[in-house]
Amino acid sequence: MRRFATERAKRLLFGSLLASRSPPSAFLCSSPPAAAAMDPAAGVVTVDTINPKVLKCEYAVRGEIVSHAQRLQQELQDKPGSHPFDEILYCNIGNPQSLGQQPVTFFREVLALCDHPSLLDKSETHALFSADAIARAWQILDVIPGRATGAYSHSQGIKGLRDAIAAGIADRDGFPANPDDIFLTDGASPAVHMMMQLLIRSEKDGILCPIPQYPLYSASIALHGGSLVPYYLDESTGWGLEISELKKQLEDARSKGITVRALVVINPGNPTGQVLAEENQREIVNFCKNEGLVLLADEVYQENIYVDDKKFNSFKKITRSMGYIDDEIPLVSFQSVSKGYYGECGKRGGYMEVTGFNAQVREQIYKVASVNLCSNISGQILASLVMNPPKVGDESYESFNADKNGILSSLARRAKALEDAFNSLEGVSCNKAEGAMYLFPRLRLPQKAIAAAKAVNAAPDAFYARRLLDATGIVVVPGSGFGQVPGTWHVRCTILPQEDKIPAIISRLKAFHEAFMEEFRD
Amino acid sequence: MRRFATERAKRLLFGSLLASRSPPSAFLCSSPPAAAAMDPAAGVVTVDTINPKVLKCEYAVRGEIVSHAQRLQQELQDKPGSHPFDEILYCNIGNPQSLGQQPVTFFREVLALCDHPSLLDKSETHALFSADAIARAWQILDVIPGRATGAYSHSQGIKGLRDAIAAGIADRDGFPANPDDIFLTDGASPAVHMMMQLLIRSEKDGILCPIPQYPLYSASIALHGGSLVPYYLDESTGWGLEISELKKQLEDARSKGITVRALVVINPGNPTGQVLAEENQREIVNFCKNEGLVLLADEVYQENIYVDDKKFNSFKKITRSMGYIDDEIPLVSFQSVSKGYYGECGKRGGYMEVTGFNAQVREQIYKVASVNLCSNISGQILASLVMNPPKVGDESYESFNADKNGILSSLARRAKALEDAFNSLEGVSCNKAEGAMYLFPRLRLPQKAIAAAKAVNAAPDAFYARRLLDATGIVVVPGSGFGQVPGTWHVRCTILPQEDKIPAIISRLKAFHEAFMEEFRD
Repeated sequence: MRRFATERAKRLLFGSLLASRSPPSAFLCSSPPAAAAMDPAAGVVTVDTINPKVLKCEYAVRGEIVSHAQRLQQELQDKPGSHPFDEILYCNIGNPQSLGQQPVTFFREVLALCDHPSLLDKSETHALFSADAIARAWQILDVIPGRATGAYSHSQGIKGLRDAIAAGIADRDGFPANPDDIFLTDGASPAVHMMMQLLIRSEKDGILCPIPQYPLYSASIALHGGSLVPYYLDESTGWGLEISELKKQLEDARSKGITVRALVVINPGNPTGQVLAEENQREIVNFCKNEGLVLLADEVYQENIYVDDKKFNSFKKITRSMGYIDDEIPLVSFQSVSKGYYGECGKRGGYMEVTGFNAQVREQIYKVASVNLCSNISGQILASLVMNPPKVGDESYESFNADKNGILSSLARRAKALEDAFNSLEGVSCNKAEGAMYLFPRLRLPQKAIAAAKAVNAAPDAFYARRLLDATGIVVVPGSGFGQVPGTWHVRCTILPQEDKIPAIISRLKAFHEAFMEEFRD
Repeated sequence: MRRFATERAKRLLFGSLLASRSPPSAFLCSSPPAAAAMDPAAGVVTVDTINPKVLKCEYAVRGEIVSHAQRLQQELQDKPGSHPFDEILYCNIGNPQSLGQQPVTFFREVLALCDHPSLLDKSETHALFSADAIARAWQILDVIPGRATGAYSHSQGIKGLRDAIAAGIADRDGFPANPDDIFLTDGASPAVHMMMQLLIRSEKDGILCPIPQYPLYSASIALHGGSLVPYYLDESTGWGLEISELKKQLEDARSKGITVRALVVINPGNPTGQVLAEENQREIVNFCKNEGLVLLADEVYQENIYVDDKKFNSFKKITRSMGYIDDEIPLVSFQSVSKGYYGECGKRGGYMEVTGFNAQVREQIYKVASVNLCSNISGQILASLVMNPPKVGDESYESFNADKNGILSSLARRAKALEDAFNSLEGVSCNKAEGAMYLFPRLRLPQKAIAAAKAVNAAPDAFYARRLLDATGIVVVPGSGFGQVPGTWHVRCTILPQEDKIPAIISRLKAFHEAFMEEFRD
């Protein structure tokens, strides 16, 4: 292989004429096909010959900083005491249970019973499971053809579970939802990919995305070969979304010949944590309507609201309250079992509610879903549970509600404590996390730090994040992974470490930041 | 919307000049943006404006015949007795549990315990679960960081589960496997998509696929914008795979300027059921090596072998037994929890073992996996279980083995009975199902039937399948969904109905076929 690599390097150096005449030596050992019209080496897989869209795609949430953290973790395991901290704190990703959040008992009871339905026939089961979990498992099994939780389902998901989800949406919004509009998926990410795949024809198709944004969007747009059309959230007004900015960016893209097909809105915001006001949502709906854009509403943090003066409103509710009926406004709402108070990331459950597309287009979405057969049934069941949790009077209700409120109120306290801590740091300002699971503080770094970053070929915020990790074991994601106003620097930090760890995290963070500023003070 | 539809129809009739000057009436109610450089209607979503790759993609296994079957099922439910049969028999898809196959108890016990780990602390649990299922659940939880089955895992899957899978592969093959080569996925389909996404740059990149093929391949190639380069399996030699045919098709594609990047081999075959001989596999490996092709080995039916004189050999084992080491031959093996004796389609578990790619390319595969975070943890656990089932001496071993052998021997009997039945029909010939879950009989239809099909604008095999469904409730997939030698006609029929139903199915099939031939006899 070494010789081959050298030949390959030569081919790259000497260009395609040489390449087409001189097969690399690795192939000389076998007789080439008699009538081959092309060099067989043209098919060999290197980063130069893979799909360039794959190369272009980036996903910072699991990027280089995380690989480095995994190495440090291994070193800590192999050689305890080798670093100035005992553990790696993964604040890079919204993964609550990885940091010790316990699953909601009721949900897990139902999942276990559906996984092994013969438990339902045993008397011992009543000692181990709550009565309403048993009843719910029966209800669910009864809507699954043949009670076969091991069978592929309808490609949109089991009809009876979609009925339950539609009922949950209707309860939430006060407007009806249609189970035929629900597509159950393995988490929200595949749903986003499906919509990007549907809408993007070439790099002349654009998708309006917030900056900063959750990098699933930039990654998916890159993988599908489209253009990300950025609109900037206004940090000075708590990451406000201004219609004038949407208009400006849309017109700018159009003037470059881009057909803008959709607007992505993440509400509550990721990585920015703001919750949109109802009036702002109405303006956004009108903007999409006027401009002929699909509204892609990432609403996976709909249960994560931490301030009293804000409330989550689904875009579906907003459009219906404005009087728009189904086919007047193409709207896709993404929801996931990974977020909320449940945080069941490993279950890969989620759905999209697809409204406002004509029957032919809907058929195409169904076809793409059918190529992958269906999403996992446990994730489907869980999606139906989070949209229809225990109600007042159910045996589990009180303990369920205690679980839920305990998690949400603790998240609110953690958000506030970390926000205050960031704001207490020299040169750092941090907007409130009104919702979601993240803070996105702005770092005003000394020129010396910026120069030091440049010297190692790193963005200043990546440099800061790396130094923070090496000093404290805390993993945050540099703002450059989400996008930011050029010349500004941020990091994204989740609010998810367990509450008893927050004070220690804050002291480590403060000590690190002081030392960093001291080291690089101009 | 009706007015809009009319305007849209006009735009299509009068072409793009009109289109760019006259926005459709649905938009007239709102003021257009002042400085819009393009017609906002250009962004509206219709089948004319979606990604044409999506339009091109086809997936017959869940195509029109299945939609029709679902309608019939609804009619039967709403009005029992409305059709000459009591139930729809879905022989269109390899979905064993949908037709009554029971899940393997040991697997479900472990899954339930991992879903609700607090069961492991309760004494009643020992009355409900086998001791080795409890022990296995502990083992699995111990390799999951924080025992958090609700957390996102490493994007390739939980390391300890990959260790178990690699050990299972090594046991199977007698050659070592590396856990870092394993990528756990939500079933095999997303794994196939990932490889197609990696390899296909444009329609000038080709993938050699068997004809007939499982339409996931044609669908995935279409979605990623590549070219399917067909090679025909030889029906007259039991769906033999001839190297001369591979060479011919490869050279033909190259002469058209196609860069052929990979060869797909499905072994055991889908829809064709043949099991490759070891010598044939060696020839295939050499062919890939000589021609610089990635070998994409669909080995999801590796446990489904029904004849004594054939044995499954993984391509990994074949390459290693030929003396090739890892980086000499790019090979991807796909495996799934949906097939085998377990048939756990709804769990969406699977993996690909990726060998022979350089580190840079591997990093790109990892990056694409990381954009979707991870596959579902229950599916990951199940994949580790099917690759490491109970061993002699384990409490569950005997009942597990009885489950397994019961299912596999019954499948073998069902395959033989249905094969004999097809071969007994006038004008029908059917190769043996040596493996997998399907028969793919050839239909020699009377000219009158072909003409009748043409009159309703249907392919003759689609016409036959529709008539069969309407008369008997049996759903099969027309051969045209898989590809076939032009002018030949087939259907794919699974061997999965429960054994007690097979005699009735055979009588219904025979009666239908006789009547059909009588009706259309030339």
